[in-house]
Amino acid sequence: MVSRARLARVLQRQSRPWVAAAVTPRGTTVATTVTATRCFATSKPQLIAASSSRCVAKLTTETYPEIKRNEKFTQLTKEHVSYFRELLGGESAIIDGVNKDANDDMLMFNEDWMHKYRGQARLVVKPKSTEEVSKILKYCNDNLLAVVPQGGNTGLVGGSVPVFDEIVISLARMNQIESFDEVSGSLVLGAGCVLEVADQYLAQRGYIFPLDLGAKGSCHVGGNVATNAGGLRLIRYGSLHGSVLGMEAVLPNGTIMNDLCTLRKNNTGYDLKQLFIGAEGTIGIITKLCIQCPQRSPAVNVAFFGLESYEKAQLAFREAKGQLSEILSAFELMDGLSQDLVHRAKKDAMPLEGKYPFYCLIETSGSNGDHDYEKLEKFLEDVMSREIIADGVVAQDATQIKALWAWRESISEVSGHWGGVYKYDVSIPLADMYSIVDDVNARLKEAGLLGDTDEYPVLAAIGYGHMGDSNLHLNVVVRRYDKAVEAVLEPYVYEWIKKRKGSISAEHGLGLAKKNYIQYSRDETMIGLMKQIKQLYDPVSHTHVCSTSKIQLASWFVSLAHQIKTHTSPAHTPRSILLA
Amino acid sequence: MVSRARLARVLQRQSRPWVAAAVTPRGTTVATTVTATRCFATSKPQLIAASSSRCVAKLTTETYPEIKRNEKFTQLTKEHVSYFRELLGGESAIIDGVNKDANDDMLMFNEDWMHKYRGQARLVVKPKSTEEVSKILKYCNDNLLAVVPQGGNTGLVGGSVPVFDEIVISLARMNQIESFDEVSGSLVLGAGCVLEVADQYLAQRGYIFPLDLGAKGSCHVGGNVATNAGGLRLIRYGSLHGSVLGMEAVLPNGTIMNDLCTLRKNNTGYDLKQLFIGAEGTIGIITKLCIQCPQRSPAVNVAFFGLESYEKAQLAFREAKGQLSEILSAFELMDGLSQDLVHRAKKDAMPLEGKYPFYCLIETSGSNGDHDYEKLEKFLEDVMSREIIADGVVAQDATQIKALWAWRESISEVSGHWGGVYKYDVSIPLADMYSIVDDVNARLKEAGLLGDTDEYPVLAAIGYGHMGDSNLHLNVVVRRYDKAVEAVLEPYVYEWIKKRKGSISAEHGLGLAKKNYIQYSRDETMIGLMKQIKQLYDPVSHTHVCSTSKIQLASWFVSLAHQIKTHTSPAHTPRSILLA
Repeated sequence: MVSRARLARVLQRQSRPWVAAAVTPRGTTVATTVTATRCFATSKPQLIAASSSRCVAKLTTETYPEIKRNEKFTQLTKEHVSYFRELLGGESAIIDGVNKDANDDMLMFNEDWMHKYRGQARLVVKPKSTEEVSKILKYCNDNLLAVVPQGGNTGLVGGSVPVFDEIVISLARMNQIESFDEVSGSLVLGAGCVLEVADQYLAQRGYIFPLDLGAKGSCHVGGNVATNAGGLRLIRYGSLHGSVLGMEAVLPNGTIMNDLCTLRKNNTGYDLKQLFIGAEGTIGIITKLCIQCPQRSPAVNVAFFGLESYEKAQLAFREAKGQLSEILSAFELMDGLSQDLVHRAKKDAMPLEGKYPFYCLIETSGSNGDHDYEKLEKFLEDVMSREIIADGVVAQDATQIKALWAWRESISEVSGHWGGVYKYDVSIPLADMYSIVDDVNARLKEAGLLGDTDEYPVLAAIGYGHMGDSNLHLNVVVRRYDKAVEAVLEPYVYEWIKKRKGSISAEHGLGLAKKNYIQYSRDETMIGLMKQIKQLYDPVSHTHVCSTSKIQLASWFVSLAHQIKTHTSPAHTPRSILLA
Repeated sequence: MVSRARLARVLQRQSRPWVAAAVTPRGTTVATTVTATRCFATSKPQLIAASSSRCVAKLTTETYPEIKRNEKFTQLTKEHVSYFRELLGGESAIIDGVNKDANDDMLMFNEDWMHKYRGQARLVVKPKSTEEVSKILKYCNDNLLAVVPQGGNTGLVGGSVPVFDEIVISLARMNQIESFDEVSGSLVLGAGCVLEVADQYLAQRGYIFPLDLGAKGSCHVGGNVATNAGGLRLIRYGSLHGSVLGMEAVLPNGTIMNDLCTLRKNNTGYDLKQLFIGAEGTIGIITKLCIQCPQRSPAVNVAFFGLESYEKAQLAFREAKGQLSEILSAFELMDGLSQDLVHRAKKDAMPLEGKYPFYCLIETSGSNGDHDYEKLEKFLEDVMSREIIADGVVAQDATQIKALWAWRESISEVSGHWGGVYKYDVSIPLADMYSIVDDVNARLKEAGLLGDTDEYPVLAAIGYGHMGDSNLHLNVVVRRYDKAVEAVLEPYVYEWIKKRKGSISAEHGLGLAKKNYIQYSRDETMIGLMKQIKQLYDPVSHTHVCSTSKIQLASWFVSLAHQIKTHTSPAHTPRSILLA
């Protein structure tokens, strides 16, 4: 039995330096405050590795010279630009790099936030309506102009930026909230609406967006859906395949698909919108959405634990699922290395006194703070008395909740601070999930690439993620991008995952980064069936891509995902990091 | 303020005759018992209208002579039968109506349980493996033999039975539970597994199937997914588009699509399995599934209310959503007429003393009985003091829970007791939802078709359903099926729904019943896009159907849904009713 004193210490500890604000009663109503401030889009990260004050990625075509432009696609001319200028009503709706030098303005559309990919687009168009999107796509289709749809450009797989001179179609101006039904919770909004804006709108009405992720301050809901983003609360609110009630999308030939249903149930034929969820913009551009939003829980609790092993983390997860049940809204895993990096980058004191190989963050949200706290207390007493957790702390107010979440959410940002990061977002059956991190570290060490000093390109491979979804983020933190590191990692990581029947992309999508590796998660029949769908919706691009570029032979699917009616406006991590 | 005495009466009332069992403490752990017994597949309904002891439907081709068989499809021969007999290993795997008279054995496969549709199949095949399904479909495709996949044959729209002489492919023998992960909750099972069997398997492991419906004792999980069944707890566990993690299906040409992923997240290309959810078997036969199952809540409470108006029912729903929040697992609406019919058929005393125009059933399920009861009590106090509900009763034990649920679940069965029932399963924005029932009753009355005596074909139109999902079941209870009634109802009902932007099929699918009405819920573009998908997966059937039968010109989609690689094994209401 755990001593009451020890339990009380965990529940009420106030001595740690990260406890900044006044302690308020348990079960504080904090939901709105928390979500409004937790996005690190508002922070100002420093890029440490680059010597210049502005770090710009190498051109993708230099990094990957094997990718060839499909020469059947037309070169952009001044006449094309005139068409778009006239269609969209003037200068403010386009960025014109054809008639003038607009490289600076273009950079944020050409480059991803991790500075791994940089395209050479010379035109950005910013439609304001579905009809404009339709006309743009029809024109591009008729004139063989390659395009890349783009939302918040917060993606992690190079899927939201051009590779060559594709036209960037930015959805940023399609950001209206159109309607909200306060009884049913169905929200209709433009694809370019920023996730956090939508969530704040809902917070004022007692509802919550059924998706939350670090990049919420920048990412667009259209991109979230196009990439089937998972995020922090999938364990509670399920996947977007369940939450998206309706969709309006424009097909490559300009056809508007209006399936903007606001009802929870509609079994009248094939549910085609499902195909566009996670298709990464390769078969059409999502323009509007209807989302089923759940009630916002007024009471939120967050606890942070240290654990002695991965096995104990699995036990803690199992108990949390069983005992916290309907109020469990997040179960996040972080390894000791990841927390060390956050500590080194942020200099903040750590939440717990001791150091542990693993940490978990558990969030509960419910309608009754007292009930939730009682459940949490009972759970804590159980896992402490059985020595499943070694130490822990429970946030006492909104500030502490925010501070605890920062130890999880900063990892993604911080892991790029030493120069770069190879990101693998994978799904692996839980029992095996963490061992990939150990194996990758051992392999990098053996290859002489990992070490404490600058001569080694790799600092460490770290692991963290959404334990509730068997979703691990394996980040290989590097001092510089290096082909030798890449060669050690790939296809090794993918082969490792295939052996365990995992997924090589749990929530980030394929994009450019994983285009050659789809076969590690899908068999030939499945890839063939996907090819049929691409052919069906985008016959022009399909034919052209398949007939010219070498890379497509290796993997039809993702070649499309970087070349033409492609890309999307995905999830995760903010544009501001790029502008900092 | 509601008097404590009155509240106590609602919470503890024990004087009503329906209260059969001993009263046990509040928050009783009942989940397993409840779900195991609530299916009325075990009851023995009487068919009142038919004078003979066995009621057999008219042949569908007699009822709808305008539907013509596509003569390009081959007539079944003894050689075909020999192929199947050899392939499947003998007599037990087929029902052979070609070489002998097997009408009696065939009836349960040819006729739907409502006795509305009866086909003329002369062969039933019962594969035991995916490979067998593949070989059957390939053979049929190559030899132009029309087929109908069939699960529990509990569908309500004539989608799971043949129309002409299609071969019935029964999935009943593919009923294995293959694996269950007790940490993640992912269940892998054959499409022919009966829903209740799967749920009982899960109950023993502390989990629940994320779908529940009246026909659970007969329907197959494959049919549930093929029809995207919604059921009683969609409000809590969401739609199957979110719960189905993986699928194995066989395409019309015999190709096996293996997407039997057991992970919650897998963003590697198009999520093709989503297309098969709700496709009603028209583009392939689902053979295996992986389902994400939630924890089973140990505490279940059920309350039953009388309300003075539909407006008050809406208010009660809103408050239940807000106050019961994460523990709300069902909010069902029943009108007074439907409860009268149940009372007349079952003779049981009603749960409440007074009669009300509307009733609601609310279920909560959670991990802590005391907490849940406290929330429910507080909610009750609120809605009673504000006179949102007029009277109510809370079940005190498992028997009472079962008894209260019976007042909701018996409606579907009972409404057929007078001779027949026209069923409309529709989705309508909540504010307008119930008024369709009033309008239909007025219209039937005006046409001289509705009255209390036998000379009128219609007894009454009643309304009930899943208020939490804006899903109304409009049942027109008739003494006999009558074309004049049909003419008054259709297309009137569909036009009514279209005006309110509702759906003509919320959860039952299109089947044969709604084949000509898809355009009331989908625009031409959408129907065209669906047609492309059918063409892609089933080019043989598509071509043939489109080139011959008249009915396809009105509605391509559903014509396919009754003619060829079609039909499915849907949801709702048991086979036993047919055998009674």
